[in-house]
Amino acid sequence: MTLRTVAEHRERVLAVLPTRHRTRRVPLEQAHGLVLAAPATAQEAVPRFDNAAMDGYAVRHADLRVGGVLTVVGEVRAGVAPAFEVAAGQAARIMTGAFLPEGADTVVPFELTDDGRDQVRIDDVPDLGRHIRRAAEDVEVGDLVAESGVVVDALTLAALAATGVADVLVVERPRVAVISTGSELCPPGAPLGAGQIPESNSLMIAGLVEEAGADVVSRTSVPDDPWAVETAVRAAEEAEADLVVLSGGVSAGDYDVVRLSLADRLEFVGVAMSPGRPQGVGLLGDLPVVAVPGNPVAAAVSVEVFVRPAVLTLAGRRETTRPVMSALASQGWTSKGDREQYTAVRLELSENGAWAHPLAPGSHRAGSLAAVEGWAVVPLGTSAVRRGDRVDVLVVR
Amino acid sequence: MTLRTVAEHRERVLAVLPTRHRTRRVPLEQAHGLVLAAPATAQEAVPRFDNAAMDGYAVRHADLRVGGVLTVVGEVRAGVAPAFEVAAGQAARIMTGAFLPEGADTVVPFELTDDGRDQVRIDDVPDLGRHIRRAAEDVEVGDLVAESGVVVDALTLAALAATGVADVLVVERPRVAVISTGSELCPPGAPLGAGQIPESNSLMIAGLVEEAGADVVSRTSVPDDPWAVETAVRAAEEAEADLVVLSGGVSAGDYDVVRLSLADRLEFVGVAMSPGRPQGVGLLGDLPVVAVPGNPVAAAVSVEVFVRPAVLTLAGRRETTRPVMSALASQGWTSKGDREQYTAVRLELSENGAWAHPLAPGSHRAGSLAAVEGWAVVPLGTSAVRRGDRVDVLVVR
Repeated sequence: MTLRTVAEHRERVLAVLPTRHRTRRVPLEQAHGLVLAAPATAQEAVPRFDNAAMDGYAVRHADLRVGGVLTVVGEVRAGVAPAFEVAAGQAARIMTGAFLPEGADTVVPFELTDDGRDQVRIDDVPDLGRHIRRAAEDVEVGDLVAESGVVVDALTLAALAATGVADVLVVERPRVAVISTGSELCPPGAPLGAGQIPESNSLMIAGLVEEAGADVVSRTSVPDDPWAVETAVRAAEEAEADLVVLSGGVSAGDYDVVRLSLADRLEFVGVAMSPGRPQGVGLLGDLPVVAVPGNPVAAAVSVEVFVRPAVLTLAGRRETTRPVMSALASQGWTSKGDREQYTAVRLELSENGAWAHPLAPGSHRAGSLAAVEGWAVVPLGTSAVRRGDRVDVLVVR
Repeated sequence: MTLRTVAEHRERVLAVLPTRHRTRRVPLEQAHGLVLAAPATAQEAVPRFDNAAMDGYAVRHADLRVGGVLTVVGEVRAGVAPAFEVAAGQAARIMTGAFLPEGADTVVPFELTDDGRDQVRIDDVPDLGRHIRRAAEDVEVGDLVAESGVVVDALTLAALAATGVADVLVVERPRVAVISTGSELCPPGAPLGAGQIPESNSLMIAGLVEEAGADVVSRTSVPDDPWAVETAVRAAEEAEADLVVLSGGVSAGDYDVVRLSLADRLEFVGVAMSPGRPQGVGLLGDLPVVAVPGNPVAAAVSVEVFVRPAVLTLAGRRETTRPVMSALASQGWTSKGDREQYTAVRLELSENGAWAHPLAPGSHRAGSLAAVEGWAVVPLGTSAVRRGDRVDVLVVR
């Protein structure tokens, strides 16, 4: 059987997604963590007007000489516009951030004066124009503040607010339904029968898609029963999911319920990756569905390389890939040369670069997932990684 | 005036925090994003029992020879325990993940057989013990799965669920009140008078403390009026805040309202840092308060170096520091040698390491905060960074 490459299957997954995003306009105070659906441009300059960078006196530089005295004609506090000008021989007390009065071209900090109230003596002469922040020297009206597809984080919020942006167009968070299948799976805390194990994939997949910026609208675990799978998918449709992620039952076995139930409506294919060879994708009506294997490590890798890019795309994100770090293998391991291998690693940063420490292999090692910091990607055609070889690592934490 | 170092002031901030955390026990499905208050140990082994790593036949290895035929005595599906043993000359069909029957010591994948139902012909002989996952080979009961102080992210959830952990003790999210001061500040969207600018610090600080894992219980902006500051602090107490963060009004000027209002109850000090020299810290009754300067860039840096570690400490986090990246300066800049300087940089990763590109200096450059990827820390005693010099960068995005 010819296997698809990871990149080909990811293209296929992205191809079943709708091309338009639902958007809405929100006041800035509700935008934290959301994704911009349009570029945001400055409505106000920063600074908005020439203002004082220090507490001091606004003066005309031509009047300044050491030991000279100026007449104080008023005071400018932050938040008000001065009702007077500074004429020759005059000075105005001014606070940091306050509007520079007409006529003044320099601010003399209090420390360089006698701090007088009616008259002020100048003890040192700063350069012309010192301690003034010029209007628009940081941002001009109309400048791009944040691009479409970026997450509005705290520093972006600061920049948007400071440039007078009061509301932004954002992408609605995608709605994802997660369905874990397998008759051996029991929800956390339920008593385990012989042959049963705790269900972990639905929590993991729900967590991963939330971390990618989606809302999980339903999360269920169903037995290897076609009727239960159908019911869960129908519930996802009713919950108005934008994407369904199924785990387990995608292989070619006698009880691979996802494949047996949906083979006539989804594509089930082999992908040249390890772990995670059997994969499914397609549309149920209008509803995009991605089906991944049930072994926890295979599920984690499949979500990483197929589902996460899909969620980020639905979320309107500009960047849909994880950072890749070039690291040195701290020990060797083997790979099937005909599969792209994803090896769980811990990362260690040192002066000489990063080390990737491989964790024990095995797609069933769910307990080790707590320690995974990245997935080292061993490319097709490479059958061994030797100690000291350079590997690309998808950094996930 | 002797200035405190950044490290000294951070110690002072941490010293006003309570030493005990509020904790509660939550079911695993409510734990995503929360911080463990106690180590979590495995309640079940992974694998829980010896099981098949492939769909195939569970057999006794001693019976195997190429072309040999075994009697199929039953089938084991995932989720059930077999009610029979595999005796000499016998085989059981078995599905991936299913409980290995007594007597069997090896699994022969379907592909190496004629896939028979009553009898099965063996076409190839795997090694003894192949295609079996051994009980506890990943995790044993009692093993540490996740340490106290870690955030329960999706992969940690997976490991906890898989090891039979049904509920976890977590730290209650800290409650933070944010108060921005300054008579020149108008909320986003409100019409701006002459001399006024949009208020951005409260959104930024609220966003940064949320990103550190806190809930913001109140967020207000007040004029330079002692009564307004008092009222806002009282509201924070009533909202049962664990920490109040004030911005603006901490310097020694005539209208520095935070300092003027609270000088008898908090310490106001100079810290050897740039930007962000004037800082305040203390307790109002039992309520920890940190006061930072109002210039947006100074506020951002102060939150980064004082408030964020405080929030992470309140949140029970093990790690309270950002990752530090060693980068090369792409161009030079000057520093006051008597202050630890925090320079906004963009980061560029290349084959040869990271480059730090300094943004234009100025603590008022709120619009540029959208572009900050890190803060290059220029240590005390260094008055210039030259192109190509190595700098430590606190990575914030």
